[in-house]
Amino acid sequence: MTRVAVLSGDGIGQEVIPVAWDIIGSLHPEFDSFEVEVGYARWKKSGVACTDDDITALKEADAILFGAITTPPDPCYRSVILGIRQRLDLYANLRPVKGNGFDIMIVRENSEGLYSGIEWQEKDRACTVRVVSVEGSRRIARAAIRLAEERGCHLTIGNKANVIKSDVLFRDICCHEAAEAGVSFEACYIDSLALDLLLHPASYGVIVTTNIFGDILSDVAGYLVGGLGMLPSANIGDRYALFEPVHGSAPDIAGQGIANPVAAIRSGAMLLEYLGHKDDAIRIEAAIQTVIKRGIKTPDLGGMATTQSFGEAVKAELGI
Amino acid sequence: MTRVAVLSGDGIGQEVIPVAWDIIGSLHPEFDSFEVEVGYARWKKSGVACTDDDITALKEADAILFGAITTPPDPCYRSVILGIRQRLDLYANLRPVKGNGFDIMIVRENSEGLYSGIEWQEKDRACTVRVVSVEGSRRIARAAIRLAEERGCHLTIGNKANVIKSDVLFRDICCHEAAEAGVSFEACYIDSLALDLLLHPASYGVIVTTNIFGDILSDVAGYLVGGLGMLPSANIGDRYALFEPVHGSAPDIAGQGIANPVAAIRSGAMLLEYLGHKDDAIRIEAAIQTVIKRGIKTPDLGGMATTQSFGEAVKAELGI
Ligand SMILES: CC(C)[C@H](C(=O)O)[C@@H](O)C(=O)O
Ligand SMILES: CC(C)[C@H](C(=O)O)[C@@H](O)C(=O)O
Repeated sequence: MTRVAVLSGDGIGQEVIPVAWDIIGSLHPEFDSFEVEVGYARWKKSGVACTDDDITALKEADAILFGAITTPPDPCYRSVILGIRQRLDLYANLRPVKGNGFDIMIVRENSEGLYSGIEWQEKDRACTVRVVSVEGSRRIARAAIRLAEERGCHLTIGNKANVIKSDVLFRDICCHEAAEAGVSFEACYIDSLALDLLLHPASYGVIVTTNIFGDILSDVAGYLVGGLGMLPSANIGDRYALFEPVHGSAPDIAGQGIANPVAAIRSGAMLLEYLGHKDDAIRIEAAIQTVIKRGIKTPDLGGMATTQSFGEAVKAELGI
Repeated sequence: MTRVAVLSGDGIGQEVIPVAWDIIGSLHPEFDSFEVEVGYARWKKSGVACTDDDITALKEADAILFGAITTPPDPCYRSVILGIRQRLDLYANLRPVKGNGFDIMIVRENSEGLYSGIEWQEKDRACTVRVVSVEGSRRIARAAIRLAEERGCHLTIGNKANVIKSDVLFRDICCHEAAEAGVSFEACYIDSLALDLLLHPASYGVIVTTNIFGDILSDVAGYLVGGLGMLPSANIGDRYALFEPVHGSAPDIAGQGIANPVAAIRSGAMLLEYLGHKDDAIRIEAAIQTVIKRGIKTPDLGGMATTQSFGEAVKAELGI
């Protein structure tokens, strides 16, 4: 039996995830799903955003569908999504960006870099250690290379090795692995890469980069496809996998029923593909495209659809 | 007497700086200029890219005009521009981005963060310490606040305090200083800020952020104005000031005479404004706009002008 954990989280997570899950659950009524309440709302009620038991429950799922969580204004709070990524060792964050004439996969290292958690406060300054490990770089390089091979495309290695010596290690390992694998590759500085991606998206295939650079680069790439409402992502490790929209909980528009569910639905499609249902993922993507082409869009894309009505239109298109 | 140090550096630096200097020198023949040969070419000849004597010479200038330098493929090489920024304590990197309907000033902290130089290599990993100091944050916050006051605009504080604890310090100091000064401000996460800047440039006035975030953000902002060929910058400290285009040495197009000199000419205009000649800066900007409107543009902007002919057109427009 296939078990899927569903974590809507806060804000618009509560709106887009039910719509996405409705589609997936309708396509696969045999899936056994269970909800886990994590996030800010839970933290306000109980002072805990995510417990050890929650993590244990997540480990029992074959895949996780995650919404978004609001950061509480508490200096001691540690992000739930970061905690899950770390405890489930979801080291590869895959962020596809597909549009007219381009099909890019951003592969973001998801376990170290500036997200190491090694930080301290001195009297007159605060420090954070950016950690780049040989093993961490190698495994993300290999994940990116596999994708470049599958897609038959070029690999771009985003780095700042001209300034940050830890990126010399990252760049060199990626280049070495790519050369060994016989994949065509190039190392680019992240600042000019971020601009060039906007100017020439069609020149990119797979882009691999360290944690925070991937974080920024994927939001920037959102510009190419109409904003963050469109971008799904997969957080993959060797044993577990979590799928989530790139956007956050968007407190500014939460509760109005107007959040764009495309990123969440696409994240659901990535989850289906991961579970072996690539055909369904393709059907869902085609349905999204058709619905948008018919002018059914949420306000962020200039339309008047609600989260709900967009979801209904996709279901109708799928005949479910 | 006003002394200006001119450092063309490598690649297209050698092409755009002479054009920019030609304009400035023609407007102010009374300026005493001297060249300092630094960079990759020098490093290849002598094994040194920039000496202590060079730094001493730079300290004697009232302002410095800098081109771009190519990073030699040597792991021990330390960037010349970073060395100059640090030794002259040029802590504020001002990057104006002005276009149709927006006028943004990116204020990049230029002395610490991931550029601390505190890094080491262990057996199986490399580490870089990101340093955020109270004093460093306060002085850049104040520089940004002064600019927001002068321009009568909003201040945006780009940070990643939801993940990186050293950014809690940065954000809190900036918010505190802005509140004290009575400037309207907002703290934004750097990932969504990078996207929102592209989507709604008119909502931004002054943006202050840490070193590498400012590095990436300013390249991204280049998209709003036709690429890096357009963006000037000022590196300012309490005693010295250096002006340089945001772009690099661009070895791919160097030697062809087609590099866009606008960023360099605008950097020259910023230098003139810094030296008290704001009227000349305004005239130069107007001349650039007129020349571009007449269709005289380098290939990066879709035109056929050369670096040289563009510069001549600006001079003709200025009547010099
Ligand atoms: C919410 C935040 C912790 C997260 C991150 O920085 O990874 C988000 O921006 C993302 O891109 O998934
Ligand atoms: C060349 C490099 C060291 C530099 C930087 O990272 O600061 C450049 O990208 C810039 O933006 O001025």
